[in-house]
Amino acid sequence: MQLNVAQKLIQNHLLSGEMNAGEEIGLRIDQTLTQDATGTMVMLELEAMGIDKVKTEASAQYVDHNLIQEDFRNADDHLFLRSAAQKFGIYFSRPGNGVSHPVHMQQLARPGKTLLGSDSHTCANGCMGMLAMGAGGIDVTMAMAGEPYFVKMPRIMGVELTGKLPDWVSAKDVILEMLRRHGVKGGVGKIIEYYGPGLKELSAMDRHVIANMGAELGATATVFPSDQEIKRFLKQQGRAEDWIELKADKQASYDEYEQIDLSSLEPLIATPSSPDNVMPVAEAAGEAIYQSYIGSSANPGYRDFAIASEIVKGRQIAAGISFDINPTSRQLLEQLVETGHIANLLAAGARMHQAGCNGCIGMGQAPATGRNSLRTTPRNFPGRSGTREDSVFLCSPETAAASALTGVITDPRTLDIPYPKISEPTAFSTQGMLEAPPADNSDIELEKGPNITTIPDFEPLEDNFDLPVLLKMADNISTDEILAGGSRVLPYRSNIQKISTFAFEIIDEDYYEKAMKKRDNGGHMVIAGFNYGQGSSREHAALAPRYLGLKVVLVKDFARIHLQNLINFGILPLTFVQEEDYNLLHQRDILEFRDIHHTIQNQRQFDIQIKDSDHAITVQHDLTKRHLDILLAGGIINWIKQKH
Amino acid sequence: MQLNVAQKLIQNHLLSGEMNAGEEIGLRIDQTLTQDATGTMVMLELEAMGIDKVKTEASAQYVDHNLIQEDFRNADDHLFLRSAAQKFGIYFSRPGNGVSHPVHMQQLARPGKTLLGSDSHTCANGCMGMLAMGAGGIDVTMAMAGEPYFVKMPRIMGVELTGKLPDWVSAKDVILEMLRRHGVKGGVGKIIEYYGPGLKELSAMDRHVIANMGAELGATATVFPSDQEIKRFLKQQGRAEDWIELKADKQASYDEYEQIDLSSLEPLIATPSSPDNVMPVAEAAGEAIYQSYIGSSANPGYRDFAIASEIVKGRQIAAGISFDINPTSRQLLEQLVETGHIANLLAAGARMHQAGCNGCIGMGQAPATGRNSLRTTPRNFPGRSGTREDSVFLCSPETAAASALTGVITDPRTLDIPYPKISEPTAFSTQGMLEAPPADNSDIELEKGPNITTIPDFEPLEDNFDLPVLLKMADNISTDEILAGGSRVLPYRSNIQKISTFAFEIIDEDYYEKAMKKRDNGGHMVIAGFNYGQGSSREHAALAPRYLGLKVVLVKDFARIHLQNLINFGILPLTFVQEEDYNLLHQRDILEFRDIHHTIQNQRQFDIQIKDSDHAITVQHDLTKRHLDILLAGGIINWIKQKH
Repeated sequence: MQLNVAQKLIQNHLLSGEMNAGEEIGLRIDQTLTQDATGTMVMLELEAMGIDKVKTEASAQYVDHNLIQEDFRNADDHLFLRSAAQKFGIYFSRPGNGVSHPVHMQQLARPGKTLLGSDSHTCANGCMGMLAMGAGGIDVTMAMAGEPYFVKMPRIMGVELTGKLPDWVSAKDVILEMLRRHGVKGGVGKIIEYYGPGLKELSAMDRHVIANMGAELGATATVFPSDQEIKRFLKQQGRAEDWIELKADKQASYDEYEQIDLSSLEPLIATPSSPDNVMPVAEAAGEAIYQSYIGSSANPGYRDFAIASEIVKGRQIAAGISFDINPTSRQLLEQLVETGHIANLLAAGARMHQAGCNGCIGMGQAPATGRNSLRTTPRNFPGRSGTREDSVFLCSPETAAASALTGVITDPRTLDIPYPKISEPTAFSTQGMLEAPPADNSDIELEKGPNITTIPDFEPLEDNFDLPVLLKMADNISTDEILAGGSRVLPYRSNIQKISTFAFEIIDEDYYEKAMKKRDNGGHMVIAGFNYGQGSSREHAALAPRYLGLKVVLVKDFARIHLQNLINFGILPLTFVQEEDYNLLHQRDILEFRDIHHTIQNQRQFDIQIKDSDHAITVQHDLTKRHLDILLAGGIINWIKQKH
Repeated sequence: MQLNVAQKLIQNHLLSGEMNAGEEIGLRIDQTLTQDATGTMVMLELEAMGIDKVKTEASAQYVDHNLIQEDFRNADDHLFLRSAAQKFGIYFSRPGNGVSHPVHMQQLARPGKTLLGSDSHTCANGCMGMLAMGAGGIDVTMAMAGEPYFVKMPRIMGVELTGKLPDWVSAKDVILEMLRRHGVKGGVGKIIEYYGPGLKELSAMDRHVIANMGAELGATATVFPSDQEIKRFLKQQGRAEDWIELKADKQASYDEYEQIDLSSLEPLIATPSSPDNVMPVAEAAGEAIYQSYIGSSANPGYRDFAIASEIVKGRQIAAGISFDINPTSRQLLEQLVETGHIANLLAAGARMHQAGCNGCIGMGQAPATGRNSLRTTPRNFPGRSGTREDSVFLCSPETAAASALTGVITDPRTLDIPYPKISEPTAFSTQGMLEAPPADNSDIELEKGPNITTIPDFEPLEDNFDLPVLLKMADNISTDEILAGGSRVLPYRSNIQKISTFAFEIIDEDYYEKAMKKRDNGGHMVIAGFNYGQGSSREHAALAPRYLGLKVVLVKDFARIHLQNLINFGILPLTFVQEEDYNLLHQRDILEFRDIHHTIQNQRQFDIQIKDSDHAITVQHDLTKRHLDILLAGGIINWIKQKH
């Protein structure tokens, strides 16, 4: 059979299932990537599972999201992550080394491998001929423990690139064109594979730009072949031996097709507040801006900064503009210093920031109220910049730099200067970028500051138990209502006991107290309507209520990711067979669960008696054998402990 | 009469009073400096006073404290400050240009002039042969409006410097030696004047280091002569024409004397948590560190960063250390890039931060819990780093860099390498550092984001009124209890209405509501014991309660600065004549103030009747004619409006 690159990557890692779109497959994961915002919980999960060393070929922990350190908590988390990396056999990239995706690409990425990361832009490393996917924290934990990653086999969209980009048009415009055509849901359930003669015009870092924002298309992954360009990139990094060729077979086919003639593209811009609100820069030109922001994993390459430098060289940015330069890695920053580009940018009036994610995830550089911010970052969702009423545009470095000079949104072609030619440096310093774990981890202790706790032990579900209904909720309850995000709550991401005090507080501010009263007295359950647990994938929305004694959630139906999180943390997810039974139940009712182990393993539907009532409720579940094993063990942490 | 430098500066600016230590003198202020943390209120005060253009020779607004921009408020403040600078005729230094003190020194400082700044380290510019003093915001506002600055004539301490600093010992060790000898109160009520043959070994920036931390000695100012070294510095900056010679007369004398033989000094370190806990580095050596931090106005010079670079050049910092580099100005950063020092620092593993105050005032880079942080900053008060349980040491760049390499506190002499010789670049870029205000300000509007309000109009004190006692407080109430600081409250520094909701909340959480009820119904008063209003000089501790209707404060005695702030905002400060009368008064008592205008202008002591009681309380005040004028006008803003 003739295979495309995505199929080859999957076939080489397939542990269970068949490569039929929509069917669940289990994949062997070679590499993992975690960052500080999600990594502390992953490390606590490894600890709770009793893992000695990770089983992947290479796992790396990056510190790039929370670099600000306004109090002890971030600094403590950094020390904890370093100690955990040493203990569990993980590479550690220290604060200031840069954003996980480009650093991983420079240091560890290998064509032909799979990469799972607890960051939605993990897909960026698809540029290296890898199958790179973002996932929830505990999925990555499981991969580190040597377990397969389960996902529905995606459809594969082949995108043929032809032609050559015109002057003033670059990789960012290619992915903005994809977003213009397909929208933010256009990639859902798909792997996007780029191929064709246009590829030879795109460097490895250009491909990173395109693969990175596959996340904004909603794609499961983006893949590029591993060709001579990838060989050249690895050679620059002193890793020529890591290269293998990986390309689609001549007769390979795709589930669907797309085609982009690079020579037909022009500078594009995504207007507020969605990455798919795309139009030509020429149409948005002339609007005053407050900020021009260059950086992030969506434009991480040497050329992205060098081109901005050449555009502003010898000129001054417009008065009153904040021109923010966010180098994506220390390696890159060193190169830009050496080649004079940082000097150009500073002389033009740039504000130079530490290498990291920074303002791309709202950690600093928030724009002023109602003022336009032009960014080379991947997302412009409302408020992501840190400013609730923000107005963020996404564009190429060429457009951002041109607009910094004029003070208004500017099509860079109208600057009337020659298009700068950038030649990349041929050697890169890699010194001190990643700290390898010690061979012997026997004397490594986890360094836990006062805000870092241990994931508590959870008991398996009993066989017979009564549960009071503590909350009766409506339809469309989001994980933000179950456990809020934001700067008030997130600093406790490493502290289950503390973060649980915020559980359900938006719905019932007394929930925490009520749940704590029942906690050592049998626990409790909650009921709700349709689409329960929509929104963010945060694990804490299952973990925190579980800590407070939540054992069963009974709803009309579940949002997909939260359902998985409930199972992972040992909470039994049930749905009504007759929707109208929802009306029979009230807060404070008590439900009698009997012979539950045998029942859920042998019946999809069963009845639960309401205490002191003539009524019973018929409930159902849709759990696989693997799910049932996890649930009856008390959650995935217990399950893996039993297994190892 | 033979005069020293301090006396010459004072004599040349004396508008009232005599140069007798302890006597109030009024000084003409030539230049002012404001930064973003205090400057927004200064600009609102100028607006409220109806000032068209400032009357100083040069005023500059810097943006260096709050650069993080986690939401719209900082960015909005920056835009507001820029618009206010343009409107009121003030130079504007944009975010990223660096710390006010070194930038002011580079761009505007002139020997022989006076400088008043709303930042306690304004004294740093005493290195330039200026009389440079830190003061409260409204004092600076008044100076900008052309009013004299009133201060008690200080005693003048002459410090003779002889000899030459040994290798590995630098200017920071000189000021640490002064702190070791005199402690944090050793300079209170004094100007410290350095003179003698040792001066020729200290560059202008070395003198900046010493003058800056005069604030930590509690000194009113530090002065250096303006000599050939200052001429050289100004020439480098392209401002040779701004130089004048200023030196002490041959027979000049001082109120007290000190002497330091520079050749006898060794590397020193201030251990937690006070700048005067000074010991030789050799005695603290060997303790593990978490962080080595280079930057701030206490070590702002090219040589301070270049020496660190030369020490770490070609080496790697110890594993797990956070080596934080905070350039003090964009000019300096450009030089360090050009001369290869930034490359050295990055290659060794440094984290490079934006030019600004940053971690020195707790805006980022907070150390981990209980871990030692070595900093070249001026202060190590508990919690100032942002970490409540911090452990901060103050030292020279030599000691900080040496310790970054070893991972433990290290006497740099023990590194066993040659002491690097630094040659300063001879030309500096000054492009784009300060934005001059436009000649015509007629069409400039203040740009106020939603968090920036206007200072409300305040009515003058009535002649006859009754006031309920809303709070009865104990001794030693601090301004932190009157109006807390911190990240919860400070974002509202430009919003009197909002910040007033936090007034007295630590003492009585219902104060705001109670006061608001009385606000349009005659207002209220508070009573307290000894040392009322100690601590921080923040103006909001007077302004916020004033907004809520506070008219009279009656206490056993006042802390000096808060007393001045009460007068400035039109609140009548009274003390008990018999301390035991404090016991006669209770919360909710009502006091009857009668014929008060005539009374306070003609009597130091008078009686106030308690309503529905046989008792009267004898009270007193110690207000000057100027104070009374301000009070009867309803505060200094009304007073200056009447005057102009």
